[in-house]
Amino acid sequence: MATRRTLRELADYLGGSVVGDEAKVIAGVASLDDAGAEQISFLANPRYALKVATTGAGAVVLPPGAERHGRNAIVVANPYLAFAKLLNLYHVPAIEPKGIMAGAHVGRNVTMGNEVTIYPGAVIGDGVTLGERVILHPGVVLYDGVRVGDDVTLNANVVVYQGCRIGNRVTVHGGTVIGSDGFGYAPDGEGYYKIPQLGIVSIEDDVEIGANCAIDRAALAATVIGRGTKVDNLVMIAHNCVIGENCIIVSQVGISGSTKLGKRVTLGGQVGVAGHLEIGDNTMVGAKSGIAGNIPAGSMVSGIPVMGHKEWLRAMAVVPKLPELRKTVAALEKKVQELEEKLSSPE
Amino acid sequence: MATRRTLRELADYLGGSVVGDEAKVIAGVASLDDAGAEQISFLANPRYALKVATTGAGAVVLPPGAERHGRNAIVVANPYLAFAKLLNLYHVPAIEPKGIMAGAHVGRNVTMGNEVTIYPGAVIGDGVTLGERVILHPGVVLYDGVRVGDDVTLNANVVVYQGCRIGNRVTVHGGTVIGSDGFGYAPDGEGYYKIPQLGIVSIEDDVEIGANCAIDRAALAATVIGRGTKVDNLVMIAHNCVIGENCIIVSQVGISGSTKLGKRVTLGGQVGVAGHLEIGDNTMVGAKSGIAGNIPAGSMVSGIPVMGHKEWLRAMAVVPKLPELRKTVAALEKKVQELEEKLSSPE
Amino acid sequence: MATRRTLRELADYLGGSVVGDEAKVIAGVASLDDAGAEQISFLANPRYALKVATTGAGAVVLPPGAERHGRNAIVVANPYLAFAKLLNLYHVPAIEPKGIMAGAHVGRNVTMGNEVTIYPGAVIGDGVTLGERVILHPGVVLYDGVRVGDDVTLNANVVVYQGCRIGNRVTVHGGTVIGSDGFGYAPDGEGYYKIPQLGIVSIEDDVEIGANCAIDRAALAATVIGRGTKVDNLVMIAHNCVIGENCIIVSQVGISGSTKLGKRVTLGGQVGVAGHLEIGDNTMVGAKSGIAGNIPAGSMVSGIPVMGHKEWLRAMAVVPKLPELRKTVAALEKKVQELEEKLSSPE
Repeated sequence: MATRRTLRELADYLGGSVVGDEAKVIAGVASLDDAGAEQISFLANPRYALKVATTGAGAVVLPPGAERHGRNAIVVANPYLAFAKLLNLYHVPAIEPKGIMAGAHVGRNVTMGNEVTIYPGAVIGDGVTLGERVILHPGVVLYDGVRVGDDVTLNANVVVYQGCRIGNRVTVHGGTVIGSDGFGYAPDGEGYYKIPQLGIVSIEDDVEIGANCAIDRAALAATVIGRGTKVDNLVMIAHNCVIGENCIIVSQVGISGSTKLGKRVTLGGQVGVAGHLEIGDNTMVGAKSGIAGNIPAGSMVSGIPVMGHKEWLRAMAVVPKLPELRKTVAALEKKVQELEEKLSSPE
Repeated sequence: MATRRTLRELADYLGGSVVGDEAKVIAGVASLDDAGAEQISFLANPRYALKVATTGAGAVVLPPGAERHGRNAIVVANPYLAFAKLLNLYHVPAIEPKGIMAGAHVGRNVTMGNEVTIYPGAVIGDGVTLGERVILHPGVVLYDGVRVGDDVTLNANVVVYQGCRIGNRVTVHGGTVIGSDGFGYAPDGEGYYKIPQLGIVSIEDDVEIGANCAIDRAALAATVIGRGTKVDNLVMIAHNCVIGENCIIVSQVGISGSTKLGKRVTLGGQVGVAGHLEIGDNTMVGAKSGIAGNIPAGSMVSGIPVMGHKEWLRAMAVVPKLPELRKTVAALEKKVQELEEKLSSPE
Repeated sequence: MATRRTLRELADYLGGSVVGDEAKVIAGVASLDDAGAEQISFLANPRYALKVATTGAGAVVLPPGAERHGRNAIVVANPYLAFAKLLNLYHVPAIEPKGIMAGAHVGRNVTMGNEVTIYPGAVIGDGVTLGERVILHPGVVLYDGVRVGDDVTLNANVVVYQGCRIGNRVTVHGGTVIGSDGFGYAPDGEGYYKIPQLGIVSIEDDVEIGANCAIDRAALAATVIGRGTKVDNLVMIAHNCVIGENCIIVSQVGISGSTKLGKRVTLGGQVGVAGHLEIGDNTMVGAKSGIAGNIPAGSMVSGIPVMGHKEWLRAMAVVPKLPELRKTVAALEKKVQELEEKLSSPE
């Protein structure tokens, strides 16, 4: 962090090529508007291409073919990705492990790797396993038998119920509950008899989960969040769901029990998905949509219930005109009746 | 748990009758696909009836009239309920009370029953009353004067504000907040003046509430969750609501202030209900619906705003065809005008 | 609290005028139905005007021009506001500061004002600043460098991430997470590369936030909740949003990244707002609406996507009649075709 590096070093880090002064020293990252002579900026949106001419930045990350206006430049295929990597390099502080701090509660038979940090107020049940460089913020609660991989950060007040598994390089934000009981009851004539929820939740590698989500444990097997999937805040994932790899699940989505998402599925904000469905790979679902049936791979759908996204846009354009449409139809009915009478009456 | 029992004993427990070997010993429960010779399975869905012939299970729970294919069987009216009861019998561990563990904080004048478990990091305010066999997981916070009945489990990081009451045999999942202030403000010309929220929340017996819900205290009296009602995750129940007995409230539902639900009302996922309404007994509301008026008992409604569920299904089937419908109407207008001109023109 | 005051004193407190016995002593507040001779009640809804004649209250707060039926009265412009103020005066207990209680964890270099209360189980990071009369309930977690103003109450299990700022007279309810990472990733061809979220959240003065909300930190600058704004439970506010002053954001609303709300905007329950939009001052958005474009000041909109609220009401009235409308149009098509054939056929 805050290290100074040459353009040559940065180009190697980003997998790009330098055009201009390879020895130019860079000390930080900023926007085209704000950057100074020791900072590097980036052009991701062609709309801002002219700012490359006027920026005060000491260098600019550009996509292939972009005009560099005489600037020192690093050319990469994906400048936005490069920007994220540079932010990480310059501005994300390295973490100093703090060990088990006073006020943390650790149960019996807990195994843990090196360089962990367990803050005051974190509570770890019996038989828990923690990998290397795990960070448990204050108020994190791991029930008995939870298994956590390497390089995992659980933010404050995250709860993981008994036996659930978290892979490597997983981050979970504050207040999220993983492994609460699935919502299963058998009507018994008077009320509801609880179906014991005996499964677990399994969070695979490289997953990030937002704040105040709820991911329920399976009835018998496992609710699975696939490798690389990113889940936003306040999302509900019900028991026995299997979410594929590299999905994007935006805030306040709810997915009902036993539904399966393929790979690289994107669910927009506040989408609801019914239970026992299959959503195919690469499907994109518009915000606020409701899904009540299976969706084939590669679909782009919207609406309650969903239809093709373009179809939905066209249909929604008609909705405000429905009262007028109804009036037109009523007028037509009258006119046609008059025409019919005119034609059938003996003249 | 893990006890071995004969089919005769199990039939007595379930209130069913044995067909086959009453002395057959059973050690666990599994699905028709997975069960072995010492396990019992069940047939709940007629679709799987043929699996009874091929299962490796030592016995099968069947509904009256189902073909047992020579298997040892227990016949009961509701095999799914029997399955839940057998899971409880064989696979849900008995709970060993742990008392007040080190790291728990207990206030002054706290009364508690026998066999309680209070985990490290739980914080109990002054004047709290706890019944028998109460379990408070880590991070549970009970404000002053909270009253909790017998056989209650509050999972990690559940919060109950001052004076709220929780009945017997209630389970609340992680992160849920009970008794936060209702959302009430009086505009004062410049901004908003807070209406003090002086009431409580009362959770009746046999209620289960999911993870990360929010149930607000009443302004003056009580927000009530009726006996036997089951609430899923991330549900919002506003101040002064009265929820009847044995309701099912699915995930991410929001109910506005002072609304009353009757008995056995089912609200699907992400339903929203406006304030000061009455929803009659046995009403079923489809997922994602929006309710802006009272609903008579026994209704089945869907939509935003709601209409009859079948009416909604038929209406939604037309929505994707609206652009075509509009085009058809425009063409008809033109044709009718031509017809009118033809008929009125002197030939 | 529980102090006895004369009508004269109360009228001065409320900025109203007494009609009747100025020396009448009042000991509490109740509804027109419940009030006794030492209590004061109020008439806010003209529907209940006749109850002023029959109430047992010792005095009534009335709007200008209301019939007092011989009662002692205080006349004010806004009796509902007066009611809220009287509840505060008589029934909200004064708070006794308790200091840093045993079981609270306070980091290094923490600065705090007078009369604070820090409950057991609260965890305060390094370099945190707390103002006067701050109350941190059990399980509150403040990461390093958080700054909190005067007269702030953070209820149990509230989490505030590093560097975030909370103004004066702010209340946050249980379980809310402030400053979690914004949902930002750059696709890298295989999966998603995290954009570091280096900004903060800034909560301005006089804001109240409900339970189990999630307000994400900005990528580079600040997510802002404007002065006087009230946020209900389970609300999601994404990174870089700027919410104006005195907005009302009802439960389960979700606002996507970088969207700006003007002043006095009201969003109904479960509304969703897309990212990078501007919603003008004084806009009102109906419950469950979805906003996908900018909204001019003073608008009143509803629907998914939104249209004018009255337009929406009229359009929704047609929806249940769509199947009938389609049938009518099909019948018309047939009739018109018959008419055309009749007219074109040689007779």
